[in-house]
Amino acid sequence: MTAMTARQAAAAIREGTLTSVRLVESCLDRIAVQEPSVQAWTYLDPALALAHAKAADRRRDAGEPLGPLHGVPVGIKDIFDTADMPTENGTVLHAGRTTQTDAAAVALLRQAGAIILGKTVTTELAVYAPGKTRNPAAPGHSPGGSSSGSAAAVAAAMVPLAIGSQTNGSVVRPASYCGVVGYKPTRGLIPLEGALAQSKPLDTAGVFARDVGDAALIAEALVGGARRLVQTAAAEPPAPPRFAFVRTPIWDRLDADAARAFETFAARLPGIVVEAALPDWTAQGLDWHRTILEADLARSFAEEFERGRNMLSPVLCEMIARGRTHRAVDYNNALDGAGRLRDAIAEILRSFDAIVTPGTTGAPPQGLESTGSPIFCTLWTLAGVPALSLPLLNVRGGLPLGLQIVGRAGDDARLLRTARWLSQQFYSEA
Amino acid sequence: MTAMTARQAAAAIREGTLTSVRLVESCLDRIAVQEPSVQAWTYLDPALALAHAKAADRRRDAGEPLGPLHGVPVGIKDIFDTADMPTENGTVLHAGRTTQTDAAAVALLRQAGAIILGKTVTTELAVYAPGKTRNPAAPGHSPGGSSSGSAAAVAAAMVPLAIGSQTNGSVVRPASYCGVVGYKPTRGLIPLEGALAQSKPLDTAGVFARDVGDAALIAEALVGGARRLVQTAAAEPPAPPRFAFVRTPIWDRLDADAARAFETFAARLPGIVVEAALPDWTAQGLDWHRTILEADLARSFAEEFERGRNMLSPVLCEMIARGRTHRAVDYNNALDGAGRLRDAIAEILRSFDAIVTPGTTGAPPQGLESTGSPIFCTLWTLAGVPALSLPLLNVRGGLPLGLQIVGRAGDDARLLRTARWLSQQFYSEA
Repeated sequence: MTAMTARQAAAAIREGTLTSVRLVESCLDRIAVQEPSVQAWTYLDPALALAHAKAADRRRDAGEPLGPLHGVPVGIKDIFDTADMPTENGTVLHAGRTTQTDAAAVALLRQAGAIILGKTVTTELAVYAPGKTRNPAAPGHSPGGSSSGSAAAVAAAMVPLAIGSQTNGSVVRPASYCGVVGYKPTRGLIPLEGALAQSKPLDTAGVFARDVGDAALIAEALVGGARRLVQTAAAEPPAPPRFAFVRTPIWDRLDADAARAFETFAARLPGIVVEAALPDWTAQGLDWHRTILEADLARSFAEEFERGRNMLSPVLCEMIARGRTHRAVDYNNALDGAGRLRDAIAEILRSFDAIVTPGTTGAPPQGLESTGSPIFCTLWTLAGVPALSLPLLNVRGGLPLGLQIVGRAGDDARLLRTARWLSQQFYSEA
Repeated sequence: MTAMTARQAAAAIREGTLTSVRLVESCLDRIAVQEPSVQAWTYLDPALALAHAKAADRRRDAGEPLGPLHGVPVGIKDIFDTADMPTENGTVLHAGRTTQTDAAAVALLRQAGAIILGKTVTTELAVYAPGKTRNPAAPGHSPGGSSSGSAAAVAAAMVPLAIGSQTNGSVVRPASYCGVVGYKPTRGLIPLEGALAQSKPLDTAGVFARDVGDAALIAEALVGGARRLVQTAAAEPPAPPRFAFVRTPIWDRLDADAARAFETFAARLPGIVVEAALPDWTAQGLDWHRTILEADLARSFAEEFERGRNMLSPVLCEMIARGRTHRAVDYNNALDGAGRLRDAIAEILRSFDAIVTPGTTGAPPQGLESTGSPIFCTLWTLAGVPALSLPLLNVRGGLPLGLQIVGRAGDDARLLRTARWLSQQFYSEA
């Protein structure tokens, strides 16, 4: 049952061939087996989840109108507030923290009928310092971060869907490392009220799923039906899409085996994948992003830094310390630069349906000390454009390597349609 | 004819009892007499203005639909681009600068039928360093700034209407000093495209007129008819308004004679004017404003500073130099503070129709060396709330002293209605 897509499960529950209780039970069974080695969850209350599932089944039996996620369990990164579970933001400084209300994204999921299964592990305050989670697709390797538990839980088939967030590479990177679909919509599409804030100009909520159709299903519940993500994602493109293969100004940061995998991919679809380049000045985007992020970390976590910096990781303390020194002129120039970067990306996408580009520097790093580098996500996050990691490549005898596909700001439905088309060139998706 | 209000003039032109040519001629005659002593204009092309007036009269005679300002001359602060006149922004570094297009506000005025009479003097880059303009209402005294020429031209009856801008106190202060109505709408209501940018979070376009009804007339052309400024401003309030007399945390910066004038004003309307206070923390707003403004000046005028700082005033160079050192955390904390200040103002305005408070430290300063202090405008500009200076008080045997009246953000129509009601308690306005 945990092998079903969320679309199949939702349809079966609607049709009465599956109950939410059975689905949630099978997820809990799977978690019971896998969790000791994966450690994706920071809070899980099986009885609560089953009570919600029972209520969902009763509503279905009573003939009430059902949302698109009715009865389907979802994992929630532990930076989104939940009224019925603690939200600890990956730091002992927030241990036992509870809130009266759900984050807006959680409320939208409940409205769509989803069962909030539990809270998934985040790195410390959604920055770099790793949590306990391991990579189910690459034992002994990092699952990536900061949405470590959400990516790992979906990869381990503990839950079909999960949500996360990305301020640099926190959705696309763990998706790439864990071999699942990670989708970061256009910035602002998924509301962030009630989620831990790092940096308002950068923070973006995102989703994890096992295929593009499922990512569209949960995303539509979070961004509103008007965007028709599900319908468009399932449709055939009017013509075969064309892809701009963008190496970005940091191609030399890519591992050699990952570079070879990308070259091979591009060569495999001649005429469909065509090389294109961002202007050289866009390399400054990495500095712009750093300036904005560090300055905002210094503000967002000023209270934690004052109160308990000895409980914070050295890497975060250093970022905050640097962030305090950044100048307002540089910060605002960086914001302007982000706008110009978005324009430069739109310029490329005048001639192509999507950009394909690495989402990570390569395969997941060995060990759990580092969640890896987000550098191949930075420009797309800064620009606020939609990006999606597809689990299409692999290196070193089977380590997952995501292929990042990037679309125009606001054109999320088309990105999903194009991503599904590309996936089908590798293996057929329902 | 220059004694007519803009409303009267527009009506007479519509009815055919006055031509635009006659009105513009009488303005030009008045300018010919007054300009040598007032020096309100930096660019004036009488033949061009008359050609526009002739065209307006032809359109009226042909029975074409007429805008609300049809045939009425308007003065434009020389920071708003005009396609048919240079825009020099008050600095020799921009001498002879021309643009292909009108600023959005200028285009809206032309759409409403206004005759762009000429460009009025601004201080250097709309900051502090004075231009040539003198105060027609207080010979030997500063007209205030930065919208010096617009305020002076309206005060000298050279033109019934003019536009300006305020980033600190550049509409309310010169209006107070020159004894005219200066109205700074809610930030963002009048578009700023094609106007010199100092600081996006602070810049606000505004208008000058001789009474509140005329201010509403030109403002409605600039903000769109949906706000019904003219109709509401002309209406009677449903009940006598109540005013919060707010001394602000800087009351001790007020001249003694101005303080006495305000005490007398408040005592004159017992039960209608009631003392209320902003929370103490709002005093930080002065620092927040300075941080934002200086950091943004450093960015906005980086090119001028690099290219020709020896042509810039020492006061501006010092602001830019300080602005370069401001930290991003302080800048963003200041932006947050501005939001909290706006909330604190809204809290007072839950119980009152408007706030009355000084707009200047007192009467216009003697001499032309300084345009005076904007400090009594700073908090209201930072909060982005609508503010209006009414020429109702005077000190030292007749020097003008404006009474600043402040409303809730977005509630501009009500502020105008309340301002007109208050004016009528002093003398009757048509």
